[in-house]
Amino acid sequence: MTLKMNQKLFNTILLLFISAIAISQPARRPEFDSPQVNSDNTVTFKFLAPNANSVKLNTQIENGSVDMVKDESGIWSATIGPVKPDMYPYAFNVDGIQVADPKNTNIFPNEGFQNSIVEITGNNPLVHTIKDVPHGTVSYRYYTSPELGERPVVIYTPPGYETSTDKTYPILYLLHGSSDTEETWTKVGRANIILDNLIAQGKAKPMIIVMPYGRAYPSISKSAGSLRNWDNLQEIKKDFLNYLFPFINENYRVKEDRNSHAIAGFSGGGGTSLFMGLNNPDMFSWVAGFAPGMLPNEFERNNAVAFENPAQTNKNLDLFWIGVGEDDFTYRVVKEYFELLDSKGIKYERFISGGGHTWMNCKLYLSILAEKLFK
Amino acid sequence: MTLKMNQKLFNTILLLFISAIAISQPARRPEFDSPQVNSDNTVTFKFLAPNANSVKLNTQIENGSVDMVKDESGIWSATIGPVKPDMYPYAFNVDGIQVADPKNTNIFPNEGFQNSIVEITGNNPLVHTIKDVPHGTVSYRYYTSPELGERPVVIYTPPGYETSTDKTYPILYLLHGSSDTEETWTKVGRANIILDNLIAQGKAKPMIIVMPYGRAYPSISKSAGSLRNWDNLQEIKKDFLNYLFPFINENYRVKEDRNSHAIAGFSGGGGTSLFMGLNNPDMFSWVAGFAPGMLPNEFERNNAVAFENPAQTNKNLDLFWIGVGEDDFTYRVVKEYFELLDSKGIKYERFISGGGHTWMNCKLYLSILAEKLFK
Repeated sequence: MTLKMNQKLFNTILLLFISAIAISQPARRPEFDSPQVNSDNTVTFKFLAPNANSVKLNTQIENGSVDMVKDESGIWSATIGPVKPDMYPYAFNVDGIQVADPKNTNIFPNEGFQNSIVEITGNNPLVHTIKDVPHGTVSYRYYTSPELGERPVVIYTPPGYETSTDKTYPILYLLHGSSDTEETWTKVGRANIILDNLIAQGKAKPMIIVMPYGRAYPSISKSAGSLRNWDNLQEIKKDFLNYLFPFINENYRVKEDRNSHAIAGFSGGGGTSLFMGLNNPDMFSWVAGFAPGMLPNEFERNNAVAFENPAQTNKNLDLFWIGVGEDDFTYRVVKEYFELLDSKGIKYERFISGGGHTWMNCKLYLSILAEKLFK
Repeated sequence: MTLKMNQKLFNTILLLFISAIAISQPARRPEFDSPQVNSDNTVTFKFLAPNANSVKLNTQIENGSVDMVKDESGIWSATIGPVKPDMYPYAFNVDGIQVADPKNTNIFPNEGFQNSIVEITGNNPLVHTIKDVPHGTVSYRYYTSPELGERPVVIYTPPGYETSTDKTYPILYLLHGSSDTEETWTKVGRANIILDNLIAQGKAKPMIIVMPYGRAYPSISKSAGSLRNWDNLQEIKKDFLNYLFPFINENYRVKEDRNSHAIAGFSGGGGTSLFMGLNNPDMFSWVAGFAPGMLPNEFERNNAVAFENPAQTNKNLDLFWIGVGEDDFTYRVVKEYFELLDSKGIKYERFISGGGHTWMNCKLYLSILAEKLFK
């Protein structure tokens, strides 16, 4: 081969190489993008599968789960909407097998399924839309637990944290749902972008957000059910108290008083956030649950400290906030919990949204909570 | 429903919920883990697909691509190895469709394909094995380019960076391959863990590693070929010089002299790192390519500054290092490049490994380079 090897030959080699890397992916000739958000807020999804018998689009968009249609090049497609601007999980069902969208790097971090995320912005930026405002930093770190090993944690520090070297900040501990990971609150929940935007608008106080991994793995296996199971709660409590909190306090400029500490969580992580927040009044005065996973027959046990002296609990708490959707499977149990809190005279704020047990609602709840915290 | 709703009922609801979230994933009854690394370094992969006709395992492990076998519960499995300890990409091919492993959250960030990653450690930790040593921080940030928008960049700061508030550090700019993303160097290349380990052993100097997104998207579309294409190089050069470098210099405690700046990259990003490093001697004195993507007919143009005065170039460079595998598709062109450098009298270090155009080799090359930098 001479120096005159040309662009075309190189491109051929490059294609061979990409095929080699994309191990055994059938030759991907036709060029297309997926998903495509159109100017009228309809969305077109495409998936290449010349030999499939049936490809379905499954989304959390209302009326967004449909059969896809194949064209002569083997690309299946479907257009849905107009779609209400938000970020939605979706996947393709190819002859019964669920597949994330290989054209989309925006993947839902989860231990139980693989979904992709589509973002429809519409004409006006939403609270989670990435804009040209000062951005905080999302840090991936490890802390060490002798029992559980090197534990991953994702930490948001607000804009200006690095340069304002003597300022201290309040902290929100923010817990994911049962099969999610420490990345789900930023990648699907956009916690960092929501705070960037609310801080830029003067609506939220600058705060640190700590997003740990919520399962006491390897003690509690990855297929061991809800994070709010008693065994996991006990291990997580030890892990948080002995290793996570000291790690954060040593490595970040945090305000250490209880009135500067909040805890919130979604689903199984909401069960955890209520358990941790309500039973450790010396540590937290701001407690929230987003569609929290709870069992009625565990209410008394899991709320023991808070229920012992409701008047004192009301005095301890700067805010006790619960959000849930009317179509959420947890709604029925959460309503029972509301009734119990009412009967005990424990004060709380309830926020009932539309929708179900979704990360669209998580973003909404966080954006509402963030405006209330530390004020 | 009364307060006596029991665990079993709740679990049933929880299962329904998980099914709802895992939109249309067929009911996932059998419990199993995948991948499973066995004590003899064999690895068992499993995939649930009761109705599939054929499931194949495709890996970058030698002899690791095999037909899988279905059991009576609809789980396909294959055991391969013993496998040489390392981290390998893999995927399942289900009736012709490539699928990442839904049981594995360790996903290869890439715009062209979806692979999972399996890690085989063996009896002794490797240079990329997560150990109980002081860990640096991996930060996800955005910088703003008026032309290209909010640009993502991943930044490694070494252990102690946050607490040693007056120390300054050298920087390695580290570029991914053509269909990779800003996350690939940490998630697949384990750049952060490699540095944590080498720093703990006193083998590498503490340094900052800056891992930008290498495509000038949206100017250069995500399907526009190699990162080292001329159009992309021009846009990236503007982006780096005008926005990325100032962002890093303003926000991090960096040594600003050229002898404290290195640039390296893989594949298309290797073409970029040589182009940026060799044409900007005022900025970089350490330049490296890992299986760099290059075209012989572009050698003169892309190396114009370095080739103009080879003696000066040799004087400028603290290190010019190129690593490539004997089975790599770039090897033939890289050899031509070596011959050209030799004919011009430009000094460089070459490192020829076994293996191909893989991230196993990327980790090897980075671990070798990191021990040489800034010494």
